[in-house]
Amino acid sequence: MGDRLNSLQDLFVVKIGGNIIDNENNLASFLKQFAQLPAKKVLVHGGGKIATEFAEKLNIPQQVVEGRRITDHDTLKIVTMVYGGWINKGIVATLQSNDTNAIGLSGADGNLIRAVKRKKGSIDYGYVGDIIEVNTNLLCQLLDNEYVPVIAPLTHDGNGQLLNTNADTIAQSIALAVAARYKVSLIYSFEKTGVLKDISDEASLISKMNAADYKSLHEKGIIYAGMIPKLENAFTALHGGVNRVIIGKAENLNSLVNGSSGTAIQI
Amino acid sequence: MGDRLNSLQDLFVVKIGGNIIDNENNLASFLKQFAQLPAKKVLVHGGGKIATEFAEKLNIPQQVVEGRRITDHDTLKIVTMVYGGWINKGIVATLQSNDTNAIGLSGADGNLIRAVKRKKGSIDYGYVGDIIEVNTNLLCQLLDNEYVPVIAPLTHDGNGQLLNTNADTIAQSIALAVAARYKVSLIYSFEKTGVLKDISDEASLISKMNAADYKSLHEKGIIYAGMIPKLENAFTALHGGVNRVIIGKAENLNSLVNGSSGTAIQI
Repeated sequence: MGDRLNSLQDLFVVKIGGNIIDNENNLASFLKQFAQLPAKKVLVHGGGKIATEFAEKLNIPQQVVEGRRITDHDTLKIVTMVYGGWINKGIVATLQSNDTNAIGLSGADGNLIRAVKRKKGSIDYGYVGDIIEVNTNLLCQLLDNEYVPVIAPLTHDGNGQLLNTNADTIAQSIALAVAARYKVSLIYSFEKTGVLKDISDEASLISKMNAADYKSLHEKGIIYAGMIPKLENAFTALHGGVNRVIIGKAENLNSLVNGSSGTAIQI
Repeated sequence: MGDRLNSLQDLFVVKIGGNIIDNENNLASFLKQFAQLPAKKVLVHGGGKIATEFAEKLNIPQQVVEGRRITDHDTLKIVTMVYGGWINKGIVATLQSNDTNAIGLSGADGNLIRAVKRKKGSIDYGYVGDIIEVNTNLLCQLLDNEYVPVIAPLTHDGNGQLLNTNADTIAQSIALAVAARYKVSLIYSFEKTGVLKDISDEASLISKMNAADYKSLHEKGIIYAGMIPKLENAFTALHGGVNRVIIGKAENLNSLVNGSSGTAIQI
């Protein structure tokens, strides 16, 4: 595995969380660092508060269950506009001004990410998609031609339906899709310095975590809420051939990439 | 010129106007026909009333001068969301369900269309762009790989600024950019059967129009308002090497393409 990876080119798949997107200056500073990463790269962005604020202005009530937005028809319209339009095109235009040939895509574009609408269980999430396939060819064509894909958290079902889809999971699926072609670093960047033992104490950073550590911390309730699916995504990525996964602060992107900050997930 | 064109592959650049987009059933029926066009193709879409209605809901006053929307900061946000998000991704998802590998793009994506913000004259149009360059390489890469570009009427200035840009002009610029590589048919499709002598009488169709006809009809005031820039775009396209320009009804797309309906513009 080491030999195989050493013969491959680096690729950074960076996911940027909502809280960074909400602040114009933080986003601009993050994008400047992202633009300067010295390798091929993909950016996956979340949505953040903008969609919620926007829904409030339009009097469309929003419901979030276990960190997932319940997506009715009106909410799907809003997230398509905010994620696929305003945030995606804004990021692309900013990257273009940083000498980065970004190209913004939803999962419907070029059939990049095919999903199925989540079945109703005890909760009906509405127009929420679970990923079934990534178009690796399109990704590789764009990367080969020096484009930088910027991916909005939207997928489609192939029957004309757009679906709201978790950005962490999209980043994991994209990383896996190209893991045979590139030495992939998957970076989950957000507002915290990494995985913390105490969420209120940035100094309680866990710098390395393997599956046994995760199991133990999860059982003790130290890892909970939104961090659970993020870590599940991280382990899935590593088991599927992604070279490394780092979780950490968006404004420290350079040190996350060189391994001097954040939490390194290991198997 | 005839010999050169005969050695080239057909390409349809189809612009669809706002009034078709406003009606879900008309749009679905149009897209079904578009998907079946037996050649490579590009779709350029306008915005229509959706952006205006949306702005009203958000209490953002809209001002239109000579058919052009004055685009202040809030209006730019709305058109980026509506054109680049909701309409563009909706069209792409529908085309995907019609076995067409559509890929939605704004002018910022892959630096597809570079523009400059229009200088303030007697009217300040705000964030409105005049096109300076089309990225022909990106277009050709996508067409070579059997993707169908779906282009929203948004451009960028290369310095991070998105700009609202007339969709007729985008269609003309796209057609011109690939005129050396393809035998291009530029189709302006909208709610009328073509250029009419009497705008209230669909039977008054002008089936062919050359530059002398246009000059005469313009001077007599028979051609006015939004049809003037559309025709100017048509003649610019033909003079730049586009093979033919047809103006006509979106629901007749097949007969527009085979030349049995609409107005054929000639030089």
